[in-house]
Amino acid sequence: MKESIRKITGAITAPRGFHASGVFCDIKKLGTGRGSEKGRKRDLGILVSEVPATVAGLFTTNQVCAAPVKVSLERACQETACAIVANSGNANACTGAVGMRDAESMTEMVASRLGLLARDVLVCSTGRIGVTLPMANVERGIAEAIGQLSRSPDSAHQLTEAIMTSDTRPKEVAVEFVMNGRKARLAGICKGAGMIQPGMSATGRRPAAMPLHATMLCFLTTDAAIESKALKAALEAAVAQSFNRITVDGDMSTNDSVIILANGLAGNKRVELAKRPRADFALFQQALNYVTLELAKMIVRDGEGASRFVTVRVSGAASFADADAAARAVANSALVKTSWCGGDPNWGRILDALGYSSALVAEEKVSLGYSLPGSDSVMLALQCGEPASTPLAALKKITGLREFDLHIDLNLGSSEAVIYAADLTEEYVDFNKGE
Amino acid sequence: MKESIRKITGAITAPRGFHASGVFCDIKKLGTGRGSEKGRKRDLGILVSEVPATVAGLFTTNQVCAAPVKVSLERACQETACAIVANSGNANACTGAVGMRDAESMTEMVASRLGLLARDVLVCSTGRIGVTLPMANVERGIAEAIGQLSRSPDSAHQLTEAIMTSDTRPKEVAVEFVMNGRKARLAGICKGAGMIQPGMSATGRRPAAMPLHATMLCFLTTDAAIESKALKAALEAAVAQSFNRITVDGDMSTNDSVIILANGLAGNKRVELAKRPRADFALFQQALNYVTLELAKMIVRDGEGASRFVTVRVSGAASFADADAAARAVANSALVKTSWCGGDPNWGRILDALGYSSALVAEEKVSLGYSLPGSDSVMLALQCGEPASTPLAALKKITGLREFDLHIDLNLGSSEAVIYAADLTEEYVDFNKGE
Repeated sequence: MKESIRKITGAITAPRGFHASGVFCDIKKLGTGRGSEKGRKRDLGILVSEVPATVAGLFTTNQVCAAPVKVSLERACQETACAIVANSGNANACTGAVGMRDAESMTEMVASRLGLLARDVLVCSTGRIGVTLPMANVERGIAEAIGQLSRSPDSAHQLTEAIMTSDTRPKEVAVEFVMNGRKARLAGICKGAGMIQPGMSATGRRPAAMPLHATMLCFLTTDAAIESKALKAALEAAVAQSFNRITVDGDMSTNDSVIILANGLAGNKRVELAKRPRADFALFQQALNYVTLELAKMIVRDGEGASRFVTVRVSGAASFADADAAARAVANSALVKTSWCGGDPNWGRILDALGYSSALVAEEKVSLGYSLPGSDSVMLALQCGEPASTPLAALKKITGLREFDLHIDLNLGSSEAVIYAADLTEEYVDFNKGE
Repeated sequence: MKESIRKITGAITAPRGFHASGVFCDIKKLGTGRGSEKGRKRDLGILVSEVPATVAGLFTTNQVCAAPVKVSLERACQETACAIVANSGNANACTGAVGMRDAESMTEMVASRLGLLARDVLVCSTGRIGVTLPMANVERGIAEAIGQLSRSPDSAHQLTEAIMTSDTRPKEVAVEFVMNGRKARLAGICKGAGMIQPGMSATGRRPAAMPLHATMLCFLTTDAAIESKALKAALEAAVAQSFNRITVDGDMSTNDSVIILANGLAGNKRVELAKRPRADFALFQQALNYVTLELAKMIVRDGEGASRFVTVRVSGAASFADADAAARAVANSALVKTSWCGGDPNWGRILDALGYSSALVAEEKVSLGYSLPGSDSVMLALQCGEPASTPLAALKKITGLREFDLHIDLNLGSSEAVIYAADLTEEYVDFNKGE
């Protein structure tokens, strides 16, 4: 991160003019302590900008996509929006015409109470698929959430909590930077845990070298002033290097959504897209890249049952599509992921996965090794298809860590790709075999 | 199975003129009871035909393929061969030039002792990747195995044992049928357990709608007389409906091999490929289809950690490639496989996997249900995208069984595909996280 971008404490309401809240309305099953706040989990939240904000959004490219995705995808194409309403515990996916009416009506409930148009409100859901929303609970929740909207960090954390499902901890990042003499802030929150290999686009069409397969939700706020086209381009670039490069279990969700609201209250000269990249756009992009990548990594680290965080770095591929396919084949192989769980530097399984990927691979050219996270000092396990001289114990020292990097050089070209991946553990199976 | 094809007891030496053996030579790690036969596991075996046999073989299409695959693929293109030598405990994969010399030298050792040419001997290995074979042990094993060659069922079972790795039980099938007034027999043995989603071809090129990702080995013998081209065509068709339609963990191995030897000692009129399919070819194909499919299903039922056997039947797809992609996406989804482990009829995860597959899917057209194995009496969970009225308890009664069928109708066309799949269990992770 550039020194000009500074990490700050504070959550989604750190930028000027944003209000948040998160409440209990029993969409999630009641836990123990039924009736008491202690045993309940927040499951509905609202985020509002005091003034209309420039909006951009990227959504799952799964052909089976949830009703709120259909509603929000369209509204994220507008120049501006004012609010987001979100619930956890129910994905409102595979719920047909009833689901569409429910998603729209969530936005209408928020709009009518805040004096907005429904089209200025976006909606997100996460949780169980195939069950219609308990709309009486939702309406009660929305009324309460609107009453509790505030700029306080506590309210912001409550929104973060309200979108969590199998997450074990909240995920929040905020930064500050100076644009044209004005201090601007950018903040984000997200949730993840399972059904995680997002492949999002702004149009529903898959970008090139897309993942085949979370529900992950991410809301971003900034008080920077930025025009709609520039914001949409910046979000697409940021997601391409963050959320679209992670995998927990290889399953792409029906509900993945990333939405950013930029309300301009920092008072900077409006950032615009120009033919020659401008310094302010570059700075904004860097801030957005940093926040989205930090959030994306938090999702992998807190993936269902995850005990290791592995950065798979493929280089020397004949094309980006090949580099991407090779990295995903390795990161999604059940045998590779279980070997990571055991801390085993089993390069045979990695070569096997490379060989069945759609990427061009020549066994006698592949080099492969391990390093500490982010380090270029690679301990080779395999050099041009032949076992390297590194002792197994030295490799195990690295693969025994909670986080490490796996470097694969295909030695066939100059294209690269990175995938941030979790291991596959008994805890993952145990968690998901229930209902 | 047609009544004209009768299942018989007996293993790989049931057809006339085949001799087998399986011995200990410590390629596999010694278990407890070191030194005693009780604690050791057979790890080298030989199969020989008394007379030159017509040969056919299909091998992994993984770009990283083992030395024995390279050697045997070429020899399976010949008209005839006489013997197969196989070991477990070491895959002789990713072993470079040394591995190629070792594979060839295994065939030379067998050939010189039996008075054959090396090219008449095929070779298969399965086990750990990336370690060279202990050739002194191999040579000792081959000498001993040749000394023990016999037609007895015990010797046949010992060969079956010698190719097992993580298999918990031997896999053997034999049938008898009458061709042109002559009794002919066809028998097969195989091993599987992990790294199982074979995609084999006779040429190393992937067939259409191929799996993306076992070591599985299968040896087949028959005393039917059949010409080379007919045998090669029959094996390809048989594998397309059996081994190439199974998945345990979605990982395609470096060593998958299926080899058949047909020595003609039944004395039937030689089966030939004709423009108009002949009755004897059809009968032979049926027998081969039956034996290979029974063996393939045994691999799935005995998959590493597997607790359920699910037959995924996709119909109504726009093309076979779509039907295949849809079935594989479901059968390889970590979330679907863990829900099977829990006996949970979670159709939301199935729809999610269909949606991210490369198959054309329209949520509002998908129907989905469960039945007893092989039954057409389907209990619907979802009808044209809407939850069906079947009570959850009724669905759970079926998904709680050790074996059931999942029926998915995409309602977009007339193409079909079936995949035989295992669930994903904590035992799978536990088994594979070690070395």
